[in-house]
Parts: sequence; structure tokens; C-alpha cells
Amino acid sequence: MQQGKQSIRFENLPRILEAASVVGEKEGQGPLGEKFDEIEKDPMFGAEDWEGAESALQKRTAEKVLEKAGLTRTQIRYLFAGDLLGQLIATSFGTVDLEIPVMGLYGACSTMGEAIGLAASFVDAGNADYTLALASSHFASAEKQFRFPLEYGNQRPYSATWTVTGCGAVALGQKGGIAAVSGMTPGKIVDMGHKDSMNMGAAMAPAAADTILRNFQDFDRRPEDYDQIITGDLGTIGREILIDFLRNKGYDISGRHMDCGIEIFDAESQDTHAGGSGCGCSAVTLCADILPRIQTGEWQRVLFVPTGALLSSTSFNEGKSIPGIAHGVVLETVLDGRGRQ
Amino acid sequence: MQQGKQSIRFENLPRILEAASVVGEKEGQGPLGEKFDEIEKDPMFGAEDWEGAESALQKRTAEKVLEKAGLTRTQIRYLFAGDLLGQLIATSFGTVDLEIPVMGLYGACSTMGEAIGLAASFVDAGNADYTLALASSHFASAEKQFRFPLEYGNQRPYSATWTVTGCGAVALGQKGGIAAVSGMTPGKIVDMGHKDSMNMGAAMAPAAADTILRNFQDFDRRPEDYDQIITGDLGTIGREILIDFLRNKGYDISGRHMDCGIEIFDAESQDTHAGGSGCGCSAVTLCADILPRIQTGEWQRVLFVPTGALLSSTSFNEGKSIPGIAHGVVLETVLDGRGRQ
Repeated sequence: MQQGKQSIRFENLPRILEAASVVGEKEGQGPLGEKFDEIEKDPMFGAEDWEGAESALQKRTAEKVLEKAGLTRTQIRYLFAGDLLGQLIATSFGTVDLEIPVMGLYGACSTMGEAIGLAASFVDAGNADYTLALASSHFASAEKQFRFPLEYGNQRPYSATWTVTGCGAVALGQKGGIAAVSGMTPGKIVDMGHKDSMNMGAAMAPAAADTILRNFQDFDRRPEDYDQIITGDLGTIGREILIDFLRNKGYDISGRHMDCGIEIFDAESQDTHAGGSGCGCSAVTLCADILPRIQTGEWQRVLFVPTGALLSSTSFNEGKSIPGIAHGVVLETVLDGRGRQ
Repeated sequence: MQQGKQSIRFENLPRILEAASVVGEKEGQGPLGEKFDEIEKDPMFGAEDWEGAESALQKRTAEKVLEKAGLTRTQIRYLFAGDLLGQLIATSFGTVDLEIPVMGLYGACSTMGEAIGLAASFVDAGNADYTLALASSHFASAEKQFRFPLEYGNQRPYSATWTVTGCGAVALGQKGGIAAVSGMTPGKIVDMGHKDSMNMGAAMAPAAADTILRNFQDFDRRPEDYDQIITGDLGTIGREILIDFLRNKGYDISGRHMDCGIEIFDAESQDTHAGGSGCGCSAVTLCADILPRIQTGEWQRVLFVPTGALLSSTSFNEGKSIPGIAHGVVLETVLDGRGRQ
């Protein structure tokens, strides 16, 4: 049901039944390495091109989450999925063999928030017994799409992020599971006129702030009502902007904020500069690190806010700004067969 | 609620309150010309580039539907929107000024079906008082994205379609209105190995057939239970494949099938070959022609099935096939304050 101006409260507390994450070798060498379900050393994932590699990554992750949840693909009613590539080409070829009706989504790197929110809303409304939400990115397909061919060997400024090679997928259902989805706060597009595609954290931070602020107001909550507030891929620079912005609005989230882009790599030893990015960054961090902590009750209520920078190589070359968007979902520990709320 | 294997029945019968269509000059000269809300003679829509033109088109259409429905943008809780361009760049810049939380969607030319289905599901579940669904395409931004620069002056085979310059938008709510949305049948991706991007009707027809067949089975209906079954942009060649395919399955839809791509242009005098295409094709035909006929009761129940061809210039250049997808929604005349069903 509607909650406040922009949020939804899921009264039937749809559940995340299981989560799966598959990543590339570099992500496997990072601080979260031991937590991923699979680490693939072949960057091509056995395919012939980078887009095909990302499709293979999606397919493998979807199969993994089905296996973990003990579900067959015919039990999944709808799939909510997306990636960063033009015309969602990784998703089109990555999910075709599943033969599950699919809603293609694009929210740049915020896609996992959009996907989980929609997938949960369908379960909450009784429109589906089981749904699947997934999002992926691949370093090489993203560089090809948005920046330069790898062979060009361009230099990267310290404000730039590194696109994560990874896919995260969750299976949702009505009972049991490892976490409850108690609400969502879909985000507005926020355009502050930012134009530097090598500093996307700054482009996304205002959108993240807008969604978090709206979530606080809609649910009448303060930062202390969340054990963690977790953004997608703001990186070190975007994180500072977010915290300053919310402090000016009267909310201090600094002690309970985490950014998936900062967590996934060791910036110094892995030379990833401002952090990780891509749809896959928040998706695999959610599946491998965040959900297990919610399951054990280490964090009982989390606001998960993947963040997206809305640009294309065309809009960038035309000198346009980079608007941001952030979709929030509230995740809670399952207690006594019900979520906390 | 769930209906059959793949469909949803909307028990609260969410309503389409109003619809708006804005098109380019060529569409205005076609058979449906007098039915569109606005015909713009400037192909740039006052913008500086083709992507900006499509964004301006979206913005104008959204404002038009709000005006017709007597709603302000602050009353609209969520916007479900998409276009054909990489990273939905027309939507990102076209909807930012509305300041409405937006779910970015990509279903190629099936996007209007996906958007209406999701927007209706949110109203049906009580997650929103009012939602907006829109989809657009622009001939020049699509040619630039998928085929050749206009200046190249390439020749087009007779199986090719012509991308419609147009945007259709509908406002949805709980009561009143011009039509009810009684159900949806989200589609699977269907890949028959088709590779000719100049004959996309053939690529999409198997997906359309799959969704229509599933709709019949899930709702226990026959073609006669619909006054019209309307596909998006199969064109003349795709239409034949669809009708043959369903006839082989025991369903004859030939007497009640219509394709928006065939309706929107006069193929002979307008030199558009196999017909119109693009997200905007089915969206503007729905808003200008189909919904008014449902409103008057000329058609009391319609299965509206926009069809999408899932390709990108990258996948095409890599020699990949073109999978298809089709999302169906059931639209009904509002009778006695309730839909027919």
C-alpha cells in the first residue's frame, strides 16, 4: 500500500528466498572474495565476445539461485532483469533459455533496486508465487559501450570507478527465506548538471540523497531506525557528497552508511581508484555480503539504495549532463516466521 | 491475482483515465492523422539533436495526458516509461522535469505493453492512486541508433519497416476513465534464430503468437472472446506468419486481427514498405485509435499485444539472431462504472 508521498509498504512481507552471486577474477581477489558463490577466471565466460560473456554470466547466476532455492525455472512466474548495455542485449541473450516471462528494466546501476522492488510488489500483490530479480555488468562490455576499447589503454583519473564483472540474482516468494522486503522507495531522476563521466559518484549522490530523504519522511524514520544504509556505487567521492548533503538536511548517516562500490575492491592494492561500479556491483554485494548479515540478524533492517548514472555515449558526446537515479528497498530480518516490521 | 501459467487478472479493474498522442508530420499525413492530439511539423521538436527531439516529444506528450486527465504531475505517483535508444536516453532527459519517480523499462517495441501492465498492477494493488505509462520512438534517432545515418541515403528492402516518430501516454487511476485494464500476459523472449534486421516482423511474430496463445489458455478464451486482437508492429509480413502460426494451433484470428504498424501509414502513398514500427507505433495507435473505440463500446474487449525485436547494433554486427518479445494487456469497455469482466 501507499506510504507517504513516494514509498510503498509491502503488507504481506514478500521474502527473498535465496541469493546467488557470480563474479570475475578481480572481484574474487577483493575483500569480499570468499563470499561469492562462484568466481570465474575466464573473463569471456566461455563466450565469443564481451556481450556474450555477460549473457553467460547472467545465465549461470540465474541457474545458481534456482539451485540454491530448490526451485525449477518453470516455478518462477516472472523475471525482472536488466544490464547496462544498449537495448539490454546481455539480458536478452542471457535469459532467453530460461523461458520465463521477462520484464526488461533499465535504471543504469540502480537496476537491482528497481528489479527487487518490482519483483517484491508482484509477490506482495498475489500476482506471482515466485519471481526472480537480477542485474549484471561486465568490465569489458561496459568499457566498450561507455568509454574506450580496452586495447586503447587509456589512463583513468582517480575519481573514476571500475565496472564490476558480476551478476547478482535473488529468488522471491511468499514464505520463509533469508530476508523480508518490507517496502520500496522508487527514485526520481535528479539532474544537477554534472558532466564528468569519470566522476559518476558525484552525478549520483544527489539522487541517492533524494531517495533516502524521501524514505525517511515517508516511513517517519531517522537514520537510527536502520542498522545500515547502503548505496550502490557512489565510491569515495560520491559518499562524501551524500553524507554532507544529508547532514545539511538534519540527518547524520555517517556512522551507518556503507557503499558497495567501496566495499568490493581494495582501492590501494587493486588500483580501482574511487571504487567499483556497474549494475553488478550492488547486486553481488547484496547477494554475497548484505543478505547473509540480514539473515543472521547482525543487521535487522537495511535500506538498500542502488544508484544509477543516466548517460549514454551519445548523450556524453553531445555534451549533455549526467542525471542520476536511485531506487531504495527496505530489507529486514525474518523473525518468528514474519519480518520485524 | 495469478491466472493460468503466465497471466494476471486485475480484480480491481484499474482504469485508463485518459490517453494522449503526439506525432511527427509523416504520421500526421497517414490514415490516423486526424485522430492524434498533436502533429509537430518540426522533426527536431525544437531541440538541438535527434535524441533531444525525442525527449521533447515525450515531455510534451506527458504534459498533454495530464492536461486531458485534469491531473497535476504531483498527483502521479509513479511513471513507467521507455524508448528504443541505448540507456533509455530519450526517457532520462524527457521525463526529468516531471519530477515523478520513474521505472525505466526496455522491451524494444513492446515497451508500451510492459508499461501499461506494470502501471495497472500498481494501481490494482493499491500501491498508487495514479500512474503514468508512456513509450516513444523517433525515426531519426532510431535510424542513427540501429541502421545508417540519414545522410547515407541507404536503400530499404520491401520487408523493412519505418520507425514511427511519436509518443503515446496514458494516465491510470482507480475509478472512471475511458477503459479498464482487466489483465496482462507478460511475454517470454522467443528466439527462432532469425537474423535479418530489415525484416523484423518475422523476428517478432513467433513471440506474438506465444503471448496470444498463452493468453487464450490462461483466461480460457477463444479468439471470439475478443473484439480485436491487436499487435504492435509486425507489419504485413509478420502478420501473415502470426496468423498461419495460430491457425496451426487451432485458433483463427484473421477476422479480428489488426496490426498498428499496418494501420499507421498508407504503405503505397507513403512508401513505408512493410509498415510502421518503434515503441511509438503501437503507443500512438492505442491512444489515438484503439482506446476511443473501446470507450464508445465499438470494441468491448481488446487484447493489445505490442511486439519487440531484441537487437542492438552490437549484437547485429556480431552476427547474432534477433529474439522477439510481446507483452499483452486486456483492455475493456467501462460499463456501469465497472469493466465488462
